[in-house]
Formats: sequence, structure tokens, C-alpha cells
Amino acid sequence: MPALSKKGISMPESPIRKLVPYADEATKKGKKIYYLNIGQPDIETPQKALDAVKNNDLTILSYSPSQGFESYREKLAQYYAKSGLSINKEEMIVTTGGSEALLFAMGCITDPGDEVIIPEPFYANYNGFATASGVKVKAVQGKIEDNFALPPISEFEKLITPKTKAILVCNPGNPTGYLYTKDEINQLADLAIKHDLFILADEVYREFAYDGAVHHSIMSVEKLKNHAIMIDSVSKRYSMCGARIGCLASKNKEFMNTAMKFAQARLSPPTFAQIAAEAATETPDEYFNEVIDEYVLRRNTLIEGLKEIEGTKIAVPKGAFYCTVELPINDAEDFAKWLLSDFDLNGETIMVAPAGGFYSTEGAGKNQIRIAYVLNIESLKKAIEILKKAIEVYPNK
Amino acid sequence: MPALSKKGISMPESPIRKLVPYADEATKKGKKIYYLNIGQPDIETPQKALDAVKNNDLTILSYSPSQGFESYREKLAQYYAKSGLSINKEEMIVTTGGSEALLFAMGCITDPGDEVIIPEPFYANYNGFATASGVKVKAVQGKIEDNFALPPISEFEKLITPKTKAILVCNPGNPTGYLYTKDEINQLADLAIKHDLFILADEVYREFAYDGAVHHSIMSVEKLKNHAIMIDSVSKRYSMCGARIGCLASKNKEFMNTAMKFAQARLSPPTFAQIAAEAATETPDEYFNEVIDEYVLRRNTLIEGLKEIEGTKIAVPKGAFYCTVELPINDAEDFAKWLLSDFDLNGETIMVAPAGGFYSTEGAGKNQIRIAYVLNIESLKKAIEILKKAIEVYPNK
Ligand SMILES: Cc1ncc(COP(=O)(O)O)c(C=O)c1O
Ligand SMILES: Cc1ncc(COP(=O)(O)O)c(C=O)c1O
Repeated sequence: MPALSKKGISMPESPIRKLVPYADEATKKGKKIYYLNIGQPDIETPQKALDAVKNNDLTILSYSPSQGFESYREKLAQYYAKSGLSINKEEMIVTTGGSEALLFAMGCITDPGDEVIIPEPFYANYNGFATASGVKVKAVQGKIEDNFALPPISEFEKLITPKTKAILVCNPGNPTGYLYTKDEINQLADLAIKHDLFILADEVYREFAYDGAVHHSIMSVEKLKNHAIMIDSVSKRYSMCGARIGCLASKNKEFMNTAMKFAQARLSPPTFAQIAAEAATETPDEYFNEVIDEYVLRRNTLIEGLKEIEGTKIAVPKGAFYCTVELPINDAEDFAKWLLSDFDLNGETIMVAPAGGFYSTEGAGKNQIRIAYVLNIESLKKAIEILKKAIEVYPNK
Repeated sequence: MPALSKKGISMPESPIRKLVPYADEATKKGKKIYYLNIGQPDIETPQKALDAVKNNDLTILSYSPSQGFESYREKLAQYYAKSGLSINKEEMIVTTGGSEALLFAMGCITDPGDEVIIPEPFYANYNGFATASGVKVKAVQGKIEDNFALPPISEFEKLITPKTKAILVCNPGNPTGYLYTKDEINQLADLAIKHDLFILADEVYREFAYDGAVHHSIMSVEKLKNHAIMIDSVSKRYSMCGARIGCLASKNKEFMNTAMKFAQARLSPPTFAQIAAEAATETPDEYFNEVIDEYVLRRNTLIEGLKEIEGTKIAVPKGAFYCTVELPINDAEDFAKWLLSDFDLNGETIMVAPAGGFYSTEGAGKNQIRIAYVLNIESLKKAIEILKKAIEVYPNK
């Protein structure tokens, strides 16, 4: 049998999907599971977006331009303009999800053996994209006590080597829910310029900023013209994860020309999904206001509930729809499995994401879980009740 | 300004897209262009596939499973069974186009510096995927005089080193139109087993076999269980290139488990497009019969026309919808540009793909072009007339 690649063998398994067999088993046994483990919102996709696809009159479903439909990129430019960002249609490439945008960006700026610095905990699939690109992740650890605010810049500087190509940040953060302040963004900008590094900002949750806080995009920093790369996606913004439409944006022309070569090799992003995404740009502000109100309510409910569980430490989220919380247990992965296999409260249990998979430092976050508050209030309340009870009786504390 | 990666800089530009600015200029000047340069069929997508999307009743456009919808994989298994292939739903992953399947396969079996042997001329984007994966392409040159039949196995063996991980073939071929015989497939199989290499077979044109010839899939070779990897796609089969749905299939469990990690990192293939692809599996045989009849008619028309142009050498295609032809000129790239910039016949011209981009050997195929016969008979006839006239008056022969 021919050997697989080292790269393939070392590709990390998704920390969430590892638990799926346990969940399947629990479901088979008739347990009801509240899914707090994945970022799949229960919010309805804007009707306009769905209707645009239903009403399409294509007779030949052809390739679109590799950079995406011009009409969509024009609408996208208008959308960014609304939040004060000037990004024109030549400064963006429509990608197959934010995922592909991340892959293209890594391909353009790193060679195998290069390094990217990321504050941890971070979106677990960054590990996958880094491995696929042969890139080494260097992590600067955030503190749960600070709600995972930006670690001191000196911590980043300690890790910079001639192999360092970029700083990758997620804003607002998955799994942290942290929203960077203007000052933090400026600190990152100064760092990038001082060491001539790219700043890769994953802003797929850009719309989800709470308590009146403003989202500060990396694209708003004038002096980062050549250093800033933005990753965006319609997945979360319009609750259309299944569309698979993202966006790679930068004002660095050389970077964009290089990214276009990656885009051309894979031909084009999906056509139906672009039709949906284009229509979605016309979603009225009320949609977002309602969605944000709903998430704030959920977040507040979650935080209140978690506070009542003794021994928890909570990173209070200001954005996105995740909350990382430390539990009075030793091994969150064991706990998460146990929840599915051995526990129930009146026939119901919960599925959570052990946070270890969001750290690249071995052993870090072992007693933390990530909760995605993507359930309605009623379900969320039940889920918290289950968590509380479970911690009380969990035997392997 | 931070430096881009060596990988990014060395990504090849699509040999076809290079000519697009010349085409745009020609269009601006009011010239009508017949596009023979890309594999975008003019055939209508099956109505059933389009209707399935129009009639979908999703309210939340969610992620699908990373391996694709189970219902679609089941239908796909039935589709393969109809052509005598036993591939079950666990032996396939639904990908975002055949393009992504190629990328996943390369990632699973190669590390940077590894080598893949490919008969040339080959689908130009193999170069892009190889570069993106840090893989070196070693080419075995086919002969236009043989219609680009499989080169002698001894030629492959000469190139095998400890770094060789796979043989990549395209069957039927783009840009050759060549359909491998059962004997050729068996020769490749023996080679793979003898040297313990993967055989990566790109079968995205599997449906397009002419003159009663049978397509021999790599998946039909029993003894290749652990060595065979198939790339498939609905793009050409159902003329739904814009869907972006492909498939990666293998009976090698370890390989499939590894590919799943790549699939999970990018979350899922597009949902709408899977709905269309699933419905498309119910396309009646008559659709294919009509389509095949049409392509055979076009091919025959093209070949007849090309034969009347003095000094041409034609690789007569048995499958797909491409024809590579040698012209009595020196530099096909210059010729292709000239066709757009300086030539017209009653205000009309043609766009063709210079074949050099389909070779990895420098300078090979310089006097060849690839013609995609994706136009209706009337347009095709006009296009051939234009080509004939153009060759007569082209000044840089
Ligand atoms: C932080 C972050 N980035 C990127 C993605 C990728 O999303 P998509 O490929 O659906 O756009 C996700 C999805 O959960 C995410 O959480
Ligand atoms: C030989 C070959 N393989 C793969 C592809 C990729 O097609 P897709 O990604 O649309 O499935 C193409 C497209 O033209 C092709 O010609």
C-alpha cells in the first residue's frame, strides 16, 4: 500500500467532530441533545437571499468569473462602504467560504516551514489550514481572566523570527467572543509595520458586536494598505453557512494578483450561492438589529446561568456567538464525552466543544469548553440547567 | 511591503486567461468572437436539476456534512453502479468541484518536494495544484501522431524516483480527447502496483466516450483497491460547471480518512449545488444520448474542417470535447493573440487556447492549439472557416 504524506497524517482532526460518534450513539439511545458545540446558527436566512435562488432563470449553470461575479463584488463594496470601509471590487476575490480565503491567503504569503503567530485560543481549523500549507503556528496565549484580550505586543515580538510571515487574528473571536478595541488594532498595526509582516484578520463575525461596541476592521487602518488582508464570509452574517461564499480582500495589489492565480486554478466560486449572497446584501438593517438583540439576550442568559455554577470562570463575549468558560473539572474532553455517553437529565443532555482543540499549546485549555449560543432562549436555559446538574454529579472531577 | 511566498510567485497563470485582455479589447472594437478556448459547454443543464433548486424549501441554509449529504452520496453510488462500478457512500467525499478533489488528493499523498508523473499535454491547472502543494510535475510526452495514446510504460519508469508518489492521468483527456483502452488502464495498474504508487485518475469527462467506445474507470480494476483514487465532477456531465460539485473516491480507507480531515477543515461543499447534483442523478439516459450525439456531430464537423486546412496534424478525439491540433505556424500563443488583435473575417474572429500551457516541458506544443468544441454546429463551421482563412494570411508563420 503506498504511503500517505506526512502532511496528510499530521492534519488535525476537527476537535468537535471527534465527539460525533458519541453523539450519534446517544441519539440512538433516544437521548435528546442540545447542540452547543458548533457555530451553526438557528437564525433564518434572509428570505430575499433564498428567493433570489428560487427565482433564478438560468438554463446553463456556468462557471462564474474566478474572482466572482462583478455585480456581487460591486454590491459587496457598497456593503463595506456602509461600515465606513473603502474596498473596491478589484480589491476583493469571492471565495468558497471564508475557509478558502484563509487557504488562499496562506498560500500567497507562506512557504513550507514559515511561521504564523496567532493569539490562542483560536478557530481550530487554522491548525488544519496551516498544516495543509506546511506552516508552523506560533501561539501567544490569551488569558480567560482578561476575556482573552490581545496579549501584550512584547509576547508577539518574542516569537518573531525570519520565518514569521504574518499575524493572524480573529475579530470578533471564535472561540473567545472577544472584540478588539481600536487601540488593540493599532498596536497590531504598529507591530506589522515595524516587522514588515502581514496582518491576516478573520472578520467573519464582523456584524456581531454587542453592547454598542464598534467593530474595528483591519481594513480601516490607512497605513496597513500593503499589510492588511481581510477574510470575510456570508456564512454567519446572513446565517447562510451552506452557501459557501466568502471573500478575500486586500489593498496590496501584488497580493491580490497572486491570490487570483490560486482562484483561477480552482475555476470559480459557486454560482447559485453567489446569487443568494448578492441578494443578501440588500438585507435591511432591521434584520441585523433583531439578530443582534436575540444574540445579546442569549449571551446574557448564558452568562447569568454560568455564573450560578460554582467554580466557573467566564470570558464574557462582546461579539460573535461563542463563550469560552473554565469549568471545575480536569479534562473537558472526558467531560464532553461523558455528557453524551453517561449523563442525562430527564432524557436530555448537551454537546459542547472541549476548548483544548482551540489551543496549539499542548495541554492548554484542558478544563475549558466553548459554548456556541446558537439555540433559542428556552433551549439555552434547559442546556444550562443540564450543564449545572452534570457538573454536580460528574465523577472524574 | 512584506514579501509574498515563493509558492505564490511561482503559481502559474492560467494559459487561457492570459488572452482575456486581448479578447476584451477585440470585443470593445465590436468584433464578434467564437470562443473555442474554454470547456464551458453550451448544453442546457437538466431541467430536473435546476428545478430541484428552484423548489427547495430551506429556511436556514446550513452547513452540510463535510463528506456531503448522505442522500446524494447514495444516489451517486447508484449512478456509478449503472456503469458497473461498485463505490459505496463511505468510499466517496463530495467536493467543491473536481478541482477541490484534486487538491485534497495531492494533500493526502504528497509532501513538498515529492513528484507526480503526468502524461503531457495535460489539464493546465494540474500545474497550479502541484505548485500549491509544493509538488514537482514530471511529464511523459504523448505524441500527436498517436492521438496522444498512453506513452510506453518504460518512459514512466525512467522518471520514477523515491520521491514519486503518484501517476496522474486524465481519462478521457483534456486537452487530448484521448480515451484510454482497457489494455492501457491495465498497464498503468501494473505499473502502480509494481512501484507501489497511487494512480490518480481524473474522470470528469467519463460520460463523454464516442464511437461506441467504453470508458474504463480506474475504479474498475480490482487489484488497485489501495492504489486507485478517482476524481469526478458534475461540471461537464450535466453541464453544471457553476454548481461546483465534484467527488473524490477511493477504496483505500486510510486515504479516505485522511481526505476527510481536509474536508472537515473547509467545513462543507455547497448546499444548493448538492441539491441540484442530487436531482441531476435522475437525468434520463436520453439526455446523455442526445448530448453525445451532438458532440460527435461537432467533433466530426471539426475534424473534417481541420483536415481541409493544409499543414495541420490532428489528434482525433474519442472522448471529452477537446481537440489538440498542430498548425503550420511557429508560435501558437502569438497566433492566438493575433487572431484577437489583428484579424477578422467579416468582423468575426475566434479565441483558441495555445497548447503550450498544457505541457510542462518548456517549448513543447508550441505550434499546437486546443479547440473546445462547445459551440453549436453553425457557429463551429464559421469558426473553422475563420481559422482556415486566418492561417492563410497570418504573417508570422
Ligand atoms: C473564525 C472563523 N473563521 C472562518 C470560518 C469559516 O467559515 P466559512 O468557510 O463558512 O465562511 C469560521 C466558521 O465557523 C469561523 O468560525
Ligand atoms: C480535466 C479536468 N479536470 C478537472 C476539472 C475541474 O472541473 P471542476 O472543478 O469544475 O469539477 C476540469 C475543468 O475543466 C478539467 O478539464
